[in-house]
Amino acid sequence: MTKNPEALARQQKRTQMRREQVLAAAEQCFQREGFHAASVNRIAAEAGMSVGHVYRHFDNKEDIILTLCERKFADYISHTPRLAVHTKMDTDAVVDTALDDFDWLVDPVQARYVMDVFAESGRSEQINSIVADQDYRLRHNARVLLEPYFPPERPEELECRVEMLVLVLEGLMMRTVANPEGDKARLKLAFRHLMRAILQ
Amino acid sequence: MTKNPEALARQQKRTQMRREQVLAAAEQCFQREGFHAASVNRIAAEAGMSVGHVYRHFDNKEDIILTLCERKFADYISHTPRLAVHTKMDTDAVVDTALDDFDWLVDPVQARYVMDVFAESGRSEQINSIVADQDYRLRHNARVLLEPYFPPERPEELECRVEMLVLVLEGLMMRTVANPEGDKARLKLAFRHLMRAILQ
Repeated sequence: MTKNPEALARQQKRTQMRREQVLAAAEQCFQREGFHAASVNRIAAEAGMSVGHVYRHFDNKEDIILTLCERKFADYISHTPRLAVHTKMDTDAVVDTALDDFDWLVDPVQARYVMDVFAESGRSEQINSIVADQDYRLRHNARVLLEPYFPPERPEELECRVEMLVLVLEGLMMRTVANPEGDKARLKLAFRHLMRAILQ
Repeated sequence: MTKNPEALARQQKRTQMRREQVLAAAEQCFQREGFHAASVNRIAAEAGMSVGHVYRHFDNKEDIILTLCERKFADYISHTPRLAVHTKMDTDAVVDTALDDFDWLVDPVQARYVMDVFAESGRSEQINSIVADQDYRLRHNARVLLEPYFPPERPEELECRVEMLVLVLEGLMMRTVANPEGDKARLKLAFRHLMRAILQ
């Protein structure tokens, strides 16, 4: 049976919506119970659909986890410091840019999810490669940000700064989970000082 | 029946050994499966004892988790930078002291365990208070280390440095999990630069 383009578009949209519904439900379950305890049954119940429906959109729980991880990390990376132009700006301007998305970087729900994924990387090869991939992209972005500030004839110095920047970004996440009631203004100031040190 | 002191001591030692055996087994299970999936049944099997035996030493799985967490964090804190004497040393000497236990701070198994615990802090109130308690102790130690370097009339400056130091220590953990194949010498150098920036 051939469908007309409008019907096809409607169907695709419906499929997409269903996938999103499963992912949102899975995220709820994972936050509540962790990756291992949350079953496809529970995800289906949370999404208000049958288990069969969930399997129409995803192969298994791993497939759901991987899709969510990919998206979370893409989100995270899009909020880490980046410059619109690959050019040398005033140090303060770079620091300000790095602080633009500060509130997003210290979101506790987000950060706890990343902890879950990182912990899981020791137990699942697939998650391990997602974590490795996000690490690669994060370091790449950090390198693009820092490159204009360090002499190309000393690549090791740049790499060390890249490591420092990524360490600080990930440290922010840990602080958010370790001390969610902590003084956010102070944490922001700490981040600012560290960013400045990295650029010097 | 009154026991003689030697018999009592032997019994206490046996009890202590059994507890350790359960904790070691639980640690294996948690590393492999996460906190939720690992049941008391599995922990007992891993320890090579009956479930009844496990319950003779611990109330339930939560009790095992909490005992392990307490110990892990006490261990972790004992390896974070500390000075033997509360006195002002040369900055380089402090940085060197901070680097003493570097290898311990970047142990991947250890770091992944901490991620598990941190992630879990959003799901369990008891674990949440253990994390809060370790955060308090970690900040306290950082404060003792940094206090001699910052003027007492500006306490906010000291607190900001404390935040920076703890952020960097926790960032080290994240790097270890995110990039276990990463260049450890470079990570150490990054840590050294950041420590120096914190002390300036």
